[in-house]
Amino acid sequence: MLTQVEQAVKGLISPQMEAVAKAEGFTPEHIRDMVAAGKIVIPYNTNSKPKAVGIGKGLRTKVNASIGTSSDIIDYEAEVRKAKVAQEAGTDTLMELSVGGNLDRAFMAVHCGINRYTIERLRKQNYRYGGLVSKGGTTMVSWMEKNNKENPLYEHFDRVINILKKYDVCLSLGNGLRAGAIHDSHDRAQMQELIINCELAQLGREMGCQMLVEGPGHMPLDEVEANIIVQKRMSNEAPYYMLGPISTDIVPGFDHISSAIGSAQSARYGADLICYITPAEHLALPNEEDVRMGVHAARVATYIGDMNKYPEKGRERDKQMSKARRDLDWDKQFELSLIPEEAKKIRDSRVPEDEKTCTMCGEFCAAKGSDKLFKADLAGDKV
Amino acid sequence: MLTQVEQAVKGLISPQMEAVAKAEGFTPEHIRDMVAAGKIVIPYNTNSKPKAVGIGKGLRTKVNASIGTSSDIIDYEAEVRKAKVAQEAGTDTLMELSVGGNLDRAFMAVHCGINRYTIERLRKQNYRYGGLVSKGGTTMVSWMEKNNKENPLYEHFDRVINILKKYDVCLSLGNGLRAGAIHDSHDRAQMQELIINCELAQLGREMGCQMLVEGPGHMPLDEVEANIIVQKRMSNEAPYYMLGPISTDIVPGFDHISSAIGSAQSARYGADLICYITPAEHLALPNEEDVRMGVHAARVATYIGDMNKYPEKGRERDKQMSKARRDLDWDKQFELSLIPEEAKKIRDSRVPEDEKTCTMCGEFCAAKGSDKLFKADLAGDKV
Repeated sequence: MLTQVEQAVKGLISPQMEAVAKAEGFTPEHIRDMVAAGKIVIPYNTNSKPKAVGIGKGLRTKVNASIGTSSDIIDYEAEVRKAKVAQEAGTDTLMELSVGGNLDRAFMAVHCGINRYTIERLRKQNYRYGGLVSKGGTTMVSWMEKNNKENPLYEHFDRVINILKKYDVCLSLGNGLRAGAIHDSHDRAQMQELIINCELAQLGREMGCQMLVEGPGHMPLDEVEANIIVQKRMSNEAPYYMLGPISTDIVPGFDHISSAIGSAQSARYGADLICYITPAEHLALPNEEDVRMGVHAARVATYIGDMNKYPEKGRERDKQMSKARRDLDWDKQFELSLIPEEAKKIRDSRVPEDEKTCTMCGEFCAAKGSDKLFKADLAGDKV
Repeated sequence: MLTQVEQAVKGLISPQMEAVAKAEGFTPEHIRDMVAAGKIVIPYNTNSKPKAVGIGKGLRTKVNASIGTSSDIIDYEAEVRKAKVAQEAGTDTLMELSVGGNLDRAFMAVHCGINRYTIERLRKQNYRYGGLVSKGGTTMVSWMEKNNKENPLYEHFDRVINILKKYDVCLSLGNGLRAGAIHDSHDRAQMQELIINCELAQLGREMGCQMLVEGPGHMPLDEVEANIIVQKRMSNEAPYYMLGPISTDIVPGFDHISSAIGSAQSARYGADLICYITPAEHLALPNEEDVRMGVHAARVATYIGDMNKYPEKGRERDKQMSKARRDLDWDKQFELSLIPEEAKKIRDSRVPEDEKTCTMCGEFCAAKGSDKLFKADLAGDKV
């Protein structure tokens, strides 16, 4: 069996490449060439056979929802329900991160990039306000320290890749030393790991495996652009999977919002896949409502980011929505809404006197008033 | 009675200037000079005597919550409850915008800047995807069109100012032609009104009245910086009151998030006061829960914006929070949270096995693991 990359390199177009091309408005040849170059990935584990979703250069920024049991709350049915909630809420991909789980996976995060050289950089810098924040990364480092050995996933990276290739798994290079604090953002330890992850992304791709690089984490707003420029340059534009970023440390309970603010920027500057962050982040295992809110917030953010990433693509829907608002066409407004169910729920809960308007302004509705005054004058179109 | 501006120009320091200086860590003389220059305002209507809150250059970006009855839902007690909810949620200012209301006001928005010249610009451009979206602005334009007359608040601006000065009202120059659609952002009509509003801000201030300039509205993310540069230049740094901006048209139900994304940028680039946007925006009159969520989202956004606006000021709290997280000190985490009540609610709803950790990672807690490994190595401080 050939992987997606191997097929692309041979000039073959897989059904998955066809599907992505159709969904995103490109030719299959273009998608094939981008998969061959490692700039687009299509996670398609041959065991789980998910819907083909493309991630990478030129494509709509995607949203990932991570679910999974913890050692404190082991309830597989609850996790399955959350996965379904995430799907209904419109997530593009799902990562299953259960600690003891045994579910199918579409792609996976593995901590190959932490090596002893990187740990030395962490020790030498002698600070980390947020410590280490990656569960898998810390487990790996503990093993390395205890056994005084190199990370086997790094040392035997070719073996890891050969196993993954059997199932055409798309590998997401986890960042075990990512910054989990604003003040750790772009510290040397994190950047060292990023260098190695970008190197491994190239190695893995050359071996015929699809590769994603993971980014942080916690980051102040004004560092987002720089972060993405550096990752894109060092990896030769490997798809970048950002965990937000969360743009302040001090809003637990509202990290779906702090990360929506960061994610709009990361999508804008070139991130390809955004991990949702739920209101339970830093506090507890998310429940169904948290998952729904997290996916919705991330979808809002990536849509807004894409308006700047691809201004030529994304804004027609906004134009049609504005017209529908101006013309008080409520059916059309719901049809054009990114997440119509929530909008409908709010409107239906407060019925206006005049069904054309809403309860905010009632008879003083500006749209109604300006329609009377300027209908003809405002009907034109910008070039 | 002298207004705040008149006192400042005479070199006097009012108790309100003292209070703002203390709250924001400046000398009273500095605040006085900035009030005299019109770069800081302190809304302090002598009828309602609110707590003195400073808005403007160098100060923490403030959040405003607008409440008020509509013609469809006239329930004064509900509006009072919403005002209290907004206060509990941490709003800095309140605007009472009831249509038939008779409540005290701390400051007010009046549409002085729409004149016939501006309406002509709107007609000449011959498009407006979102039409007019200001209730007060559309009412004013309707009157002007019906009577074929100039806006009396513009024509007799000096009389308006003289009335407001009697109560030391801070005037917010409303923008009746603000863009209510991404595709109308920075159209000529809106910019024409901004020119006049900036002119009026200077005139009013020279007459001894405190003045704010209002901004939009709907705006794509990449236009926010330009908008603020232009307003600050044209008004000689009059405080700028942004209604978000909302950064896409298509997310009704989630406009507290689309505007949090915009507001973090506007605060970052120099907006001084941000109007909250609730999840009910574009759909219905907000209820108490909408108001709470709107204020919280705006506070998250302005805090994040201020981290970039004033990096030297705002990040110590983030640093302490990261340390509290690393050290698993939950009491301290709540103490440092911007909105602790929501964080506590989530944590308390899912009790972990080990009270040091949380239910997300349980025994695999990265903070616990890295503490064991690197405690001494990570205890240092960055210069």
